[in-house]
Amino acid sequence: MISVSTFDLQSFLRAQHARVEALLHARAARLEPAGTPSRLAEAMSYSLMAGGKRLRPVLCLAFADAISRQSSNSSVADDAACALEYIHTYSLIHDDLPSMDNDDLRRGRPTSHKVFGEALAILAGDALLTESFTLVASGPEPVRVSLCRELATAAGAAGMVGGQVLDIADDRPAQMDYLTKMHAMKTGALIRAACRMGALAGGGGPEEVKRADAYGEAVGLAFQIADDILDVTGDPKLMGKPVGADAAAGRHTYPAVIGLEASWMLAERMVSDAVEAVAPIEGRGGPLAVLARYMVERNS
Amino acid sequence: MISVSTFDLQSFLRAQHARVEALLHARAARLEPAGTPSRLAEAMSYSLMAGGKRLRPVLCLAFADAISRQSSNSSVADDAACALEYIHTYSLIHDDLPSMDNDDLRRGRPTSHKVFGEALAILAGDALLTESFTLVASGPEPVRVSLCRELATAAGAAGMVGGQVLDIADDRPAQMDYLTKMHAMKTGALIRAACRMGALAGGGGPEEVKRADAYGEAVGLAFQIADDILDVTGDPKLMGKPVGADAAAGRHTYPAVIGLEASWMLAERMVSDAVEAVAPIEGRGGPLAVLARYMVERNS
Repeated sequence: MISVSTFDLQSFLRAQHARVEALLHARAARLEPAGTPSRLAEAMSYSLMAGGKRLRPVLCLAFADAISRQSSNSSVADDAACALEYIHTYSLIHDDLPSMDNDDLRRGRPTSHKVFGEALAILAGDALLTESFTLVASGPEPVRVSLCRELATAAGAAGMVGGQVLDIADDRPAQMDYLTKMHAMKTGALIRAACRMGALAGGGGPEEVKRADAYGEAVGLAFQIADDILDVTGDPKLMGKPVGADAAAGRHTYPAVIGLEASWMLAERMVSDAVEAVAPIEGRGGPLAVLARYMVERNS
Repeated sequence: MISVSTFDLQSFLRAQHARVEALLHARAARLEPAGTPSRLAEAMSYSLMAGGKRLRPVLCLAFADAISRQSSNSSVADDAACALEYIHTYSLIHDDLPSMDNDDLRRGRPTSHKVFGEALAILAGDALLTESFTLVASGPEPVRVSLCRELATAAGAAGMVGGQVLDIADDRPAQMDYLTKMHAMKTGALIRAACRMGALAGGGGPEEVKRADAYGEAVGLAFQIADDILDVTGDPKLMGKPVGADAAAGRHTYPAVIGLEASWMLAERMVSDAVEAVAPIEGRGGPLAVLARYMVERNS
């Protein structure tokens, strides 16, 4: 167990980020199994290796570490962490498509369909989604069945995909309950799954999975509110997009619906809830508590 | 074990088809878990319940039955069978998209994107792909890990998705080896997986899975060649598309590349190979042998 006083947030995040990058690189050969057409492999890597915060894998590994009481070094947790990033990446590729958000840029680079064409972008997304399950199912450990189920449930019709359907609906109301439900499905479900899967991979029982779930729900919402706040107050250089882009695109945001002040307060309450949820797992001020605070204090 | 003399192909196929329809209907509630947006549920069902031969589930169940020496009635085999149809259905939805084959009709009905729009069609495909894994992982049996792996490998970058990438490539050569590799990935991999997954769900060991694999490879190729032959010689009313549609669309077909006569001979050889492969499993003239023959003797 690491207490907050013994480590620095930035160096912790850098170390975890590097750990995830190394895991993703180590799985590149499996991501593109023999026989994968080279253009498809290129499109998959282009998006997967485009950087990003790697938030879902970091959360997954942090739970596995906290519950197994060590830096887990378990191939189950590592596979789960990478699979979460494959799913997240596929969702970005499909969300950016002309028929969805029609975005030309992602993380400062042309989106997949701008580089590879629409057909290959759709297929690269399909392949990343599918290979995430190859990865989670790539060993004999019985817990992998549960991990497949967690991942599929979170990513599926009542999870991420369903949330995207709500987000692109023409008749979506600018109401708090719709906004919260949409985000809980679109981004929340996979963040919750990251925490739950980490707990399962770390050998956690029902009580620990329940705590991971509560933490994931709270940080998922805090993360989204912070995103919306950054859209109003953020530094466009760090954000990689102009201030007010979401509002200009007609997206409903928390500041627009409940105001900036109430948005801050809600995000703060979510961080507190998350910290409470994991105290019995890692003690006070451990990495998970610090990660929860990072959700709202980041600047990009 | 059922011998060919004791049953009639048409009634066997009708019974198996009805069995699969019943299984798919029984899973409709799970296919659309609570919280699935209604428009998404509608789009998923529209394509999944559009009929079709249900070939992959029928093969899966036939192997499970043959190896378990009974009508398996196992929820593992049933879930695997339905998951295969979800994957097949998602692949049709995405293949029909404007940026891919741009087809307006499928089985005589408007394609998903014509009815629901392109965004929702992409998302309905994504959801069906994802929920196939919810289904396969929906129980504690350890074999479900293997089934997830089989399904993901067959559907993934070196399987079905990779085959679609080869099929839409601008520079695809009209050569036998390219054609065979493309079909082996695009349709063959999932048909092989259907047989392998049935064998695994039926409790088969490595030897039986190997035979299921050989059978699946042979019938997959026979099925594809028969498709291409039907495009030249078939009854457009039964086919649901005009004769010569594939050739007119610039698709490379076996008759175009090696001629009609050689195509027939190759298909016949594949049927013989398939029949040989399963003789030790079901004896001579069992359901699997009859299914292999059906691949080339069907008229639609």
